Amino acid sequence: MTAIPDLAAIEARDAADPLRHMRDRFVLPKGVIYLDGNSLGAASKDVFIELEKAAKEEWAEGLIRSWNKAGWFDLTLELGDKVGRLIGAEPGETVVCDTTSTNIYKALHAALSMRPDRSVIVAEGSSFPTDLYMAEGVAATRPGVTIRLEGVAAENIEDLIDDSVAVVLVNHVNYKSGELRDMAALTAKAHAVGALVVWDLCHTAGAMPVDLNGANADLAVGCTYKYLNGGPGAPAFVYAAKRHHDQIQQPLSGWWGHARPFAFTQGYEASPGIRRFLCGTQPILSLRALKGALDVWDDVDLDLLRKKSIELTDLFIELVEARCGEFGVKLECPREGARRGSQVSFSHENSYEIMQALIERGVIGDFRAPNVMRFGFTPLYVGYRDVWDAVEVLRDILATGAWQDKRFAVRAAVT
Amino acid sequence: MTAIPDLAAIEARDAADPLRHMRDRFVLPKGVIYLDGNSLGAASKDVFIELEKAAKEEWAEGLIRSWNKAGWFDLTLELGDKVGRLIGAEPGETVVCDTTSTNIYKALHAALSMRPDRSVIVAEGSSFPTDLYMAEGVAATRPGVTIRLEGVAAENIEDLIDDSVAVVLVNHVNYKSGELRDMAALTAKAHAVGALVVWDLCHTAGAMPVDLNGANADLAVGCTYKYLNGGPGAPAFVYAAKRHHDQIQQPLSGWWGHARPFAFTQGYEASPGIRRFLCGTQPILSLRALKGALDVWDDVDLDLLRKKSIELTDLFIELVEARCGEFGVKLECPREGARRGSQVSFSHENSYEIMQALIERGVIGDFRAPNVMRFGFTPLYVGYRDVWDAVEVLRDILATGAWQDKRFAVRAAVT
Repeated sequence: MTAIPDLAAIEARDAADPLRHMRDRFVLPKGVIYLDGNSLGAASKDVFIELEKAAKEEWAEGLIRSWNKAGWFDLTLELGDKVGRLIGAEPGETVVCDTTSTNIYKALHAALSMRPDRSVIVAEGSSFPTDLYMAEGVAATRPGVTIRLEGVAAENIEDLIDDSVAVVLVNHVNYKSGELRDMAALTAKAHAVGALVVWDLCHTAGAMPVDLNGANADLAVGCTYKYLNGGPGAPAFVYAAKRHHDQIQQPLSGWWGHARPFAFTQGYEASPGIRRFLCGTQPILSLRALKGALDVWDDVDLDLLRKKSIELTDLFIELVEARCGEFGVKLECPREGARRGSQVSFSHENSYEIMQALIERGVIGDFRAPNVMRFGFTPLYVGYRDVWDAVEVLRDILATGAWQDKRFAVRAAVT
Repeated sequence: MTAIPDLAAIEARDAADPLRHMRDRFVLPKGVIYLDGNSLGAASKDVFIELEKAAKEEWAEGLIRSWNKAGWFDLTLELGDKVGRLIGAEPGETVVCDTTSTNIYKALHAALSMRPDRSVIVAEGSSFPTDLYMAEGVAATRPGVTIRLEGVAAENIEDLIDDSVAVVLVNHVNYKSGELRDMAALTAKAHAVGALVVWDLCHTAGAMPVDLNGANADLAVGCTYKYLNGGPGAPAFVYAAKRHHDQIQQPLSGWWGHARPFAFTQGYEASPGIRRFLCGTQPILSLRALKGALDVWDDVDLDLLRKKSIELTDLFIELVEARCGEFGVKLECPREGARRGSQVSFSHENSYEIMQALIERGVIGDFRAPNVMRFGFTPLYVGYRDVWDAVEVLRDILATGAWQDKRFAVRAAVT
């Protein structure tokens, strides 16, 4: 066993961290080590400024005039491009709107409309469930559409992709295990048999560089409230490669996706470009908060972000195994940093209770059924010392059995 | 010609107005007479308080814990019931979520799922267009579904409703003409042949008492950013009568509508009750602002609201016709108050330019193609003197031709 780093070495890493200054952009509660930014990102000061401006100036003073004067109507595209820069999209390929679930629905319909002779959707049995529920929703009204699940119909998703497949719906990083898929390879595999791929980027947008266009991706969706720090339930995004835009049809064909939304014509005519993924009027206050959150990213080098993310998660694994290994915690995510998202999962037979005890002590991660403790590491506001301190709290809880009075706590969690 | 009221009489009406104190709950810009609350309602002070609390306490300090501790997850139902009280719904029949367009989509699918042997959707050619676009979206993926339009297939909607009709999608008040439909009569007509009705309440929720259950209504949708003052793009609502809940199926079957959203099971199982209309994670900041807006309604008597609404609109019609009739303005909404929403429409061949001139002078209404000036009267913050002053500004613009330099302004508007 090699020696683990000591506290002086940890603090030296914080001091040398080129992203350290980003932490000052965020407001974090005192006494908390926040390892749940992969569920709900923290608030930045930029958000408060934008939100107050949106409510008190644009809405209260500007009233209806702000739809044009404050640029509300184009916010979905403006913010889409800000997200697009972080996921390898060109301007005009990403739009922010609605929810991830709804955008999955649109993207699946769009893919099916581009492959009218095919009727199979391939997805992952281990997916975050809403992806599967939305695929079910698409299949429920679209005649002949069937769903093939990895882990059910075959062990590996690659073995499910043949020339009957219209679209593969796949998570870039698995919400529970943190496993990262090879976007370029899987996309190439699907394209080789004429299938399209919808990437769910919920756990990679803002967690690492994503290169949709580099991977020749077709469609993608994701949320903005995890690593992008857009706020609780902040509107989601949807991406489509430019080469597909003209062929995309999706049934949530509301007036915001119309070619001429203010002509008030009787018949629907899809807008050119990514705007055809829009449907109804978007929640502007939440969008304006998101704008503040995305402005923070203007100053972030995503390669540095990824480097720090791997260092933080590597360190967490190393320290937990060294300091807590004797108490029966077991690594449940890839050990190799390059194959992992910005999160670490450990199992223990009392994971739920241990996580409750951690939260009570100010170390906030989350629990995923049946027995996983999930810890997210947002490189913008988590430091190396945080990792050290979190592990010491975990060790103390395990060593003293301080989780045992949590056994009867009500279980509830939100991803 | 009877004499129009004089300014003293107008001011006496303001002094005697039992809703006058409600105006103090709102923040309105100086020098503005706001007659566009039917497009975007004004901000209340309550909204600012809730929004700041949501952002700075619940999100920034509470972080992920606020999903439970601050009640975020149940906000859609809590606010649904607050809206429900204003539209004649029982608790548990209304939920706030997504957009009006998306909720129309869900409601139409729900109705079609309850009438599997029928395939006709009846709608209004004069509808706000997104209702028609969403019906098109439903028909595009659901085999055999066709749309019959009032004004195209027949002059009156009643003549289109026969036993092939699954669902009638109809606006309670028309967005442009302001005409109010008889909810109970049309619902009975549809029920007599086994059809269901989806009511679009965008222009009646918060504008007058609505009695969905009294009318034996099936389904309804509406927005919260007009008369309910929830803020730009605030999430919409959807209602279903309790007797229908168990039969409702809708394809936006996301995890928030699942019977056990946190069990993370592979298969979708619809939640009991109105929650099955939920899909994805909702924009909490916009919802928390909406909570502030809806709290204002706890103190409002809707019968008094309707009485004042009719008085304001009657007065506006009377004064415009008396003071501006000579300049070619023509009433384009019902003259009888009981048949009208809380808005008045006048046409003029230069409506667009006149409206631009009005807005420049601080009288904010809006323009609807091709030639309608639309004025909304929100009884919570519009007074009788406002009506008088607005008409005087309109008269001055018409008499002096001050609208003529607006001819080349770019046309843009948002409902």
